[in-house]
Amino acid sequence: MTTGLQLRSLIKKSGDLEISLAKVEVPVPGPDQVVVKVEATPINPSDLGLLVGPADMSAATASGSGESTVVKAKVSQAALPFLAARLDQSMPVGNEGAGTVIKAGSSEAAQALMGKTVSTVGGSMYAQYVVRNARDCQPLPAGTTAAEGASWFVNPLTALGMTETMKREGHKALVHTAAASNLGQMLNRICLEDGIGLVNIVRSPAQAKILKDIGAKHVVDSTSPAFHDDLVQALVETGATIAFDAIGGGKLAGQILTAMEIAINKTAKEYSRYGSSVHKQVYIYGGLNTGPIELVRNFGQAWGVGGWLLTPFLQKIGRPEQTRLRERVVNSLKTTFASHYTRTISLPEALDLKNIAIYNKRATGEKFLINPNKP
Amino acid sequence: MTTGLQLRSLIKKSGDLEISLAKVEVPVPGPDQVVVKVEATPINPSDLGLLVGPADMSAATASGSGESTVVKAKVSQAALPFLAARLDQSMPVGNEGAGTVIKAGSSEAAQALMGKTVSTVGGSMYAQYVVRNARDCQPLPAGTTAAEGASWFVNPLTALGMTETMKREGHKALVHTAAASNLGQMLNRICLEDGIGLVNIVRSPAQAKILKDIGAKHVVDSTSPAFHDDLVQALVETGATIAFDAIGGGKLAGQILTAMEIAINKTAKEYSRYGSSVHKQVYIYGGLNTGPIELVRNFGQAWGVGGWLLTPFLQKIGRPEQTRLRERVVNSLKTTFASHYTRTISLPEALDLKNIAIYNKRATGEKFLINPNKP
Repeated sequence: MTTGLQLRSLIKKSGDLEISLAKVEVPVPGPDQVVVKVEATPINPSDLGLLVGPADMSAATASGSGESTVVKAKVSQAALPFLAARLDQSMPVGNEGAGTVIKAGSSEAAQALMGKTVSTVGGSMYAQYVVRNARDCQPLPAGTTAAEGASWFVNPLTALGMTETMKREGHKALVHTAAASNLGQMLNRICLEDGIGLVNIVRSPAQAKILKDIGAKHVVDSTSPAFHDDLVQALVETGATIAFDAIGGGKLAGQILTAMEIAINKTAKEYSRYGSSVHKQVYIYGGLNTGPIELVRNFGQAWGVGGWLLTPFLQKIGRPEQTRLRERVVNSLKTTFASHYTRTISLPEALDLKNIAIYNKRATGEKFLINPNKP
Repeated sequence: MTTGLQLRSLIKKSGDLEISLAKVEVPVPGPDQVVVKVEATPINPSDLGLLVGPADMSAATASGSGESTVVKAKVSQAALPFLAARLDQSMPVGNEGAGTVIKAGSSEAAQALMGKTVSTVGGSMYAQYVVRNARDCQPLPAGTTAAEGASWFVNPLTALGMTETMKREGHKALVHTAAASNLGQMLNRICLEDGIGLVNIVRSPAQAKILKDIGAKHVVDSTSPAFHDDLVQALVETGATIAFDAIGGGKLAGQILTAMEIAINKTAKEYSRYGSSVHKQVYIYGGLNTGPIELVRNFGQAWGVGGWLLTPFLQKIGRPEQTRLRERVVNSLKTTFASHYTRTISLPEALDLKNIAIYNKRATGEKFLINPNKP
């Protein structure tokens, strides 16, 4: 029986968070299953929600060492009602990753994957071994490494999900915030390839430069005094009426709606007492700022702000369309869908308080990769 | 040639608002048209947006008297870009009303309306006479007066639009705010008739009593210390996951989403790291509080907040469905869809600063009716 380390996050009814490494047995794969030795799995903002939750990590403590390290922190009582369904359950973590198939069930599909480097998903990737159905494993093209295939799902399909949602909801161009992120750079490459108008909102001249250097046409800096006018101008030029916002808290979502309304009214033929009749949408898909969202309503009545998540989007488009998007991704993992990491760490290193302090900042430009089998 | 008074609202490029009465010629009706002598037309919050716009009415002045009264006020420069399409145009006002058909075109449909009391709509009802297509006039049942038929469209179809939207978007019960309003009482009567769960949110014990007295089951007072717990309890009991909010500004929309999320999680079987997968929606259809909307996001990712307007809703459901709703309304104007007014005023009285100060408050319980042909 193979055993391996698996990272676990536990929030107790008392509000105590514990992050630790469990030694778990790897089940024998069923006929249609394979065992993947995980060699690369990224730490995404979407993983941190489960990993550290709303705990106050600035006061976290660690005990033990190596595989026996246990990190402890506190979750405020106010946050516990929202966590009811996970309390007192030791949760595996990790949305996506890649590795080598080391065991395969008897079916043809499973056997075909034996020895291959594959990307996969499934919520427990921060582990040395995972068992997956063959159809949930995507073999990587020859010459593509596990590290290159680790971030094949969350960011690439989110970026593609944005342009797909734009088209499906009848918009012709889009806005993206925190646009110099890994995801934002990917979105720029997609929009350049597909000829889609994209307005990038960044928070510094340095971030603007990153995007200009990869060919972005419309980059506006929210810290510039000309931000509002620049944004309106970019919206007039692109006709963007949908935005994907990674930030959430603060005034930005409302500012985008306001600028859209002004851009639309610049070309309006007739006064409408309720503002333009063009629907303006902001989807919030991240929470870089977890403070309140403040919307100053001067953008008429045809507007919406809401959450956007990858999983419901994928369910909506169905399996054949998902397959089309997945194949587009794995065929361009070294170009359009390339991710960059600042460090590669082991599972015990993922429990190091100094590392947690860095990757939990969710800062643009900082991205950690875990190699659970790092020697 | 018949002439008649018509109320006009003008905002100049300079930011000056002028409200006055124009003497306009009433066109000879076409074959399919009729002339309606308007006898009753309400002042709704939705009319005030066009009538006074964002002008500072606390500093308004009036000159002239009677039919020659002119009210002046200032619109801030910051608001002007949003009004570009109406600047320097003298706009007629008034969304709905009722009166007597005094002239009719040659068609059978028009002739059939001659002498009848009809309700109609069309954006220029604050006038002594309006010309309308026959098919846009709804004859009132025998014994129903113009005053009873004046508010036949905006409030009744908005209230029905809420329950229809609830059903079409897959929710089973709904929440309504500022729920003791004319509209809110109507919505309670509809929900009682149709067996729909309704959570009423009010802002005082007196308002709660109004609704309890007409048979409302779930009434929660946002000024009570038990508000949050009472709201969660009412949401658990009804299963409401959609809200229609007349207030807009402040924290209420977010509080409703939070309470919905808690109510859903109370019965959840499995933890979802992004919050419940049940979509929670708040539609804002009014602006009693024009301040910023503040959303504290602790309700997962399956949520939306947006504007809701009657006209796009009616366009979406199409003409046959509209007709069904309209007929339901005119057949119950004395019961389910009855409106109550605090005063009936003439057109010159609508330009009286003391009256403007009252009807512009948009206060629950205060509702003015204009009779443009009041002797």
